[in-house]
Amino acid sequence: MIKANDPSLKSWIEVDANSDFPIQNLPFGIFKTKQGAARVGSRIGDKVIDLNALYVLGYFKNLPFAQADFQTDALNPLMKKGKSATTELRNRLSKLFNKENTDLSNNAHHVDQVLHDVDKVEMLMPVQVGDYTDFYSSEGHATNVGTLFRDPANALLPNWKWIPVGYHGRASSIIPSEQAIKRPKGQQKPNEDQDPVFGPCKLLDFELEMAFITYDGKPLGESISTDEAKDYIFGMCIMNDWSARDIQKWEYVPLGPFLAKSFASSISPWIVTMDALEPFKTKGPVQDPKVLPYLEYKEDAHYDINLEVGIIPEKSEETIVCKSNYKYMYWNMSQQLAHHTVNGCNIRCGDMMASGTISGEEKSSFGSMLELSWRGTQPLKMKDGSERKFIQDHDTVVMRGHCNANGVRIGFGEVSTKVLPAD
Amino acid sequence: MIKANDPSLKSWIEVDANSDFPIQNLPFGIFKTKQGAARVGSRIGDKVIDLNALYVLGYFKNLPFAQADFQTDALNPLMKKGKSATTELRNRLSKLFNKENTDLSNNAHHVDQVLHDVDKVEMLMPVQVGDYTDFYSSEGHATNVGTLFRDPANALLPNWKWIPVGYHGRASSIIPSEQAIKRPKGQQKPNEDQDPVFGPCKLLDFELEMAFITYDGKPLGESISTDEAKDYIFGMCIMNDWSARDIQKWEYVPLGPFLAKSFASSISPWIVTMDALEPFKTKGPVQDPKVLPYLEYKEDAHYDINLEVGIIPEKSEETIVCKSNYKYMYWNMSQQLAHHTVNGCNIRCGDMMASGTISGEEKSSFGSMLELSWRGTQPLKMKDGSERKFIQDHDTVVMRGHCNANGVRIGFGEVSTKVLPAD
Repeated sequence: MIKANDPSLKSWIEVDANSDFPIQNLPFGIFKTKQGAARVGSRIGDKVIDLNALYVLGYFKNLPFAQADFQTDALNPLMKKGKSATTELRNRLSKLFNKENTDLSNNAHHVDQVLHDVDKVEMLMPVQVGDYTDFYSSEGHATNVGTLFRDPANALLPNWKWIPVGYHGRASSIIPSEQAIKRPKGQQKPNEDQDPVFGPCKLLDFELEMAFITYDGKPLGESISTDEAKDYIFGMCIMNDWSARDIQKWEYVPLGPFLAKSFASSISPWIVTMDALEPFKTKGPVQDPKVLPYLEYKEDAHYDINLEVGIIPEKSEETIVCKSNYKYMYWNMSQQLAHHTVNGCNIRCGDMMASGTISGEEKSSFGSMLELSWRGTQPLKMKDGSERKFIQDHDTVVMRGHCNANGVRIGFGEVSTKVLPAD
Repeated sequence: MIKANDPSLKSWIEVDANSDFPIQNLPFGIFKTKQGAARVGSRIGDKVIDLNALYVLGYFKNLPFAQADFQTDALNPLMKKGKSATTELRNRLSKLFNKENTDLSNNAHHVDQVLHDVDKVEMLMPVQVGDYTDFYSSEGHATNVGTLFRDPANALLPNWKWIPVGYHGRASSIIPSEQAIKRPKGQQKPNEDQDPVFGPCKLLDFELEMAFITYDGKPLGESISTDEAKDYIFGMCIMNDWSARDIQKWEYVPLGPFLAKSFASSISPWIVTMDALEPFKTKGPVQDPKVLPYLEYKEDAHYDINLEVGIIPEKSEETIVCKSNYKYMYWNMSQQLAHHTVNGCNIRCGDMMASGTISGEEKSSFGSMLELSWRGTQPLKMKDGSERKFIQDHDTVVMRGHCNANGVRIGFGEVSTKVLPAD
């Protein structure tokens, strides 16, 4: 049997060489058509595959799924079935859409029901998020923030290389790509000597992050080791963790960011599975000081994923402001998950855990305007001649990600969000 | 019509004078019997009322509910129907169980199906919690913590009287009374000059809190004003927000508490409605400096709720270690909710928002061992002669709460949790 990640695989659906969605990807998402209800889909090239239709037409025989797993508005029922089930499902899709296989491709009537043009469907939130956790695992970002706000000589806090620092975020306001956000309002204290004021955020920022989504974990009181972690992670997406820097500055001591983040976090709508990302694993950095035993890991658990951020001013063209890579993470997902559960905290199917802002060493790879404009002191030039210290009303921020290896490119598509003025 | 809160009301179910559950209470919860499945219940005296049975027997005619709202393992479907619906439901129960009403009481066969002895049922998690937020709204507690860990001369941080400070907590590990917890493990740094170590928490603490549960709010991007807040709050319970002080100290700068809290938060199983708590409203403290306009409020929104905490060492009797009151809060629930949503953050049916540790001015009213033992320097004497700086293995911590006014006592029952040793 040919493996679903084999670089030689081709689909009978045409795929452009620069597409994020060759047959080696087969991500999962939730879509709807103009008339139809929400349901589970996958994607090859510019075609969205209706998994509910495939189920109804009998193409998922002998797989451990029911129709309710596909005729639904979230991937949770599907993920509830666990890793071996979702891997089997992806393998079945790989087989059905393989150029050599005619089971489906020869049945034009079925193909009609199963495939939709990507520009004819609307992509919805893929997951009903239980708990959302945001880590802070990029050394570049933590160093930049420490340099900007604390002490350049001691930019990293003492716990940073011991603990994959993280905090709880707001799940209710995680939204899919294409949903516009309003500039948030809140308390700020622009002058140290004066009382705080209330009004629209003046320092609106993006944060370039990636997030992973979990399967059901173990019962409360048990832990997941770094070795076991891979069995509990379903897939990944790109996240723009919107941040209001002025609100954050005034509120975050001592309990962490709250309203500065909870107004919105935007994600790309296709969840790329860890199965598909397997060929793009890479070595992580040497961790010095040596981590505590529960954070040690054996298998590579970093991933080489090219990332970029663009800003599109209203009625203008896009300027790429950041080119980064997910491999710049200091702490990997296995370590994050092991740390998260080492106190007995239980994870559930649909939990989302984000990386924290991903910044490399070069300025061009910084993952937020705070860093790129160095706290507003070095504005960025847009192609249309305008400047940006932070994000302006009517700007659209776009983030994209893809991997490349052995002649295969797979990717995440994009998360694109327009900022509307405050009320 | 007699109002459901009328002090003169009596039920045909016998109620002890010291019971938390007279007919004026009528809380909601989820219970199961030995054979039966989970369903919605209420309570009068020592009887649990089966709301699914009442529905099936036709006692909820003309109410906007379906059987699925009662034959379920969470109050969320019921709360989804909104405030006027749940108020109507409580009024119907008040009428059915009123001493003057014989519709149900005269039908022994129906009574048999509807009532269960409270010691024959198991109480489950009442709510499927969406997002969990923990505030930090007691001035006494914030002052004590600031004095212990920072600067007695400037115990409150500069933002504390401007912002109802809060942070996101972990929803997955909220558990009902009677579920034991294991002592958590994690990183601690007992010696400033040495590397951190990993092991069982040595400074395990309770936090006496109250939590409220919300109805569905407004769409993302809109806010709930202090005036509107009451329409979005369903009811309250007592919460023990377990805390690992040594883990907390090492991890919480800069992003707030994480694993120090996420191993468990225990709640009392009966949700007492805001309708039932209405007669126990009381004035809050004068807020100086004057709060920003969006935090101003008109109607009293503090509540006079007596609280106590007891510790029961293994095979020993209980020692009450704290007597406090929910009225000691600086910020009230309307302010908390208005602040939480002022940036456009959406709330959903089943979200839980806790007060933060409730401490009064007197030492006997401090709501955590950290404060009661003054960071371990003043151990508490137990009735059995042993001492406590923090919580020991096999201790059971019990929290209770009740209101008293016009000769009526209504209460929350208790949240009782035993601590088991770490693995």
